[in-house]
Amino acid sequence: MRILSYVLPDGTESYGLAQGDTLRDAGAALRGKARDLQAFLATGGDLAAEAKGETLAAADVTFLPPVPNPDKIICIGLNYMTHIRETGRDAPKHPAIFIRFPGSIVGHQAAMIRPKVSDWFDFEGELAVVIGKTCRHVPAAKAKSVIAGYTCFNDGSVRDWQRHTSQFWAGKSFEKSGSMGPWIVTADEMPEPEAQHMVTRLNGQEMQSTPISDLAFGIPELIAYCSTVCELKPGDVIATGTPSGVGLFREPKVFMKPGDRVEIEITGIGTLSNPIEDEV
Amino acid sequence: MRILSYVLPDGTESYGLAQGDTLRDAGAALRGKARDLQAFLATGGDLAAEAKGETLAAADVTFLPPVPNPDKIICIGLNYMTHIRETGRDAPKHPAIFIRFPGSIVGHQAAMIRPKVSDWFDFEGELAVVIGKTCRHVPAAKAKSVIAGYTCFNDGSVRDWQRHTSQFWAGKSFEKSGSMGPWIVTADEMPEPEAQHMVTRLNGQEMQSTPISDLAFGIPELIAYCSTVCELKPGDVIATGTPSGVGLFREPKVFMKPGDRVEIEITGIGTLSNPIEDEV
Repeated sequence: MRILSYVLPDGTESYGLAQGDTLRDAGAALRGKARDLQAFLATGGDLAAEAKGETLAAADVTFLPPVPNPDKIICIGLNYMTHIRETGRDAPKHPAIFIRFPGSIVGHQAAMIRPKVSDWFDFEGELAVVIGKTCRHVPAAKAKSVIAGYTCFNDGSVRDWQRHTSQFWAGKSFEKSGSMGPWIVTADEMPEPEAQHMVTRLNGQEMQSTPISDLAFGIPELIAYCSTVCELKPGDVIATGTPSGVGLFREPKVFMKPGDRVEIEITGIGTLSNPIEDEV
Repeated sequence: MRILSYVLPDGTESYGLAQGDTLRDAGAALRGKARDLQAFLATGGDLAAEAKGETLAAADVTFLPPVPNPDKIICIGLNYMTHIRETGRDAPKHPAIFIRFPGSIVGHQAAMIRPKVSDWFDFEGELAVVIGKTCRHVPAAKAKSVIAGYTCFNDGSVRDWQRHTSQFWAGKSFEKSGSMGPWIVTADEMPEPEAQHMVTRLNGQEMQSTPISDLAFGIPELIAYCSTVCELKPGDVIATGTPSGVGLFREPKVFMKPGDRVEIEITGIGTLSNPIEDEV
């Protein structure tokens, strides 16, 4: 099941199922019960059973991030050895975590915005985990039971601001600088996300390519670590980290500029595609 | 004006004004217009004019963080030279920023929780700025116009987890490990927060003491920097950083343990006081 959020042609935000090029709307019928997909995840319901609404062409809606306003977007900083080596660092003993605000994330096909203050605007393709249950202190062995599903994530990074201090946040939360989507593939359809492969393309050219199995800290370990610190809630996002090939460490450096298009494709999920525009 | 959020004796969350030891409730009358203080700040209204509800004894309510569920809690990591020197670092060129989740913050008099996984539980007294207007790209010279007011903040820190990696988050977002309150003193009553003085006490003993004017990056500069990165919204919190005297750098180290009481007092605002309890 592919579940997603979008804006209907009349401007209403809604959510539903994606089936090929068509969407089956659930939000209009469920509004009284769950105003958005995050609230629906919290009900523990089965969207396939409940999505009895209108059928729409995917081309007629505006994609939102699959969960438009998550309580938390937890990002893992250095989690593929290929990327850790290109940054010149040693293997980490713990996950390096920073936070993005929801306002920094757009949906599939929306423009990612290069801010006025920088032209060091870089891509980071990632697999994101979406949490399905309120949970704390989840042992790694039980972590998969709290996952709603998986989606593609572009941890768009303003590199000079990321390097202002030891803390990455300033380069990681520029308004609309990242993206997520197009939809969440539910965990029942992807029992082994580690068996998938991710590719990042800039203007059609492959920039990153990795098996998800190369993650330094696996998905269960990340959920165990994060849920030791704080309660996780339905709709919370854990972006699992990016592999090598980012623009910053290329020779010469490659940054995204207006007119570019960046794609994150993960087998079993699909392709998150975004044009780049300048802040106006 | 001192504005705050609390739980009424009947279990309802509400908000209102503090006047000495009494509270004047606004939330019950305003519920249809603004469900919480964050929503009220967004209306731009004057709470003194609108708080015509019941008068309560402050002792009869349970304090919540003044804004219980802000969109953002932006924390400045190293912002007093006295603290920067005790960590062995150089003067920063930019503010070092990390994020706390709202679930990591309790209100005045609520227990701050020492997690099971650590006994390196430290205090950090701070002045917090609460934003009053939706804004982006605010020049420092105009920054004070977007401030709703000021409150006391305890950036409770789990030091060993803070040091797991280069990124501070893991030590800074443990559930209920920090606090904020008791109320927001509105900006009209405190035109110069820099003229105030802050003291942190542990079990009555002074641990930190600083004039707010010692901030390395002043409040206008912090708002300018953060609002370059992202849109700020009513209720957003910027915790401006802690001075020297934290437990980690004392000889011997001093950490908070169950039965302790920690207080952050800022002249012109009041005292934020919290007992320490162990996670159960």
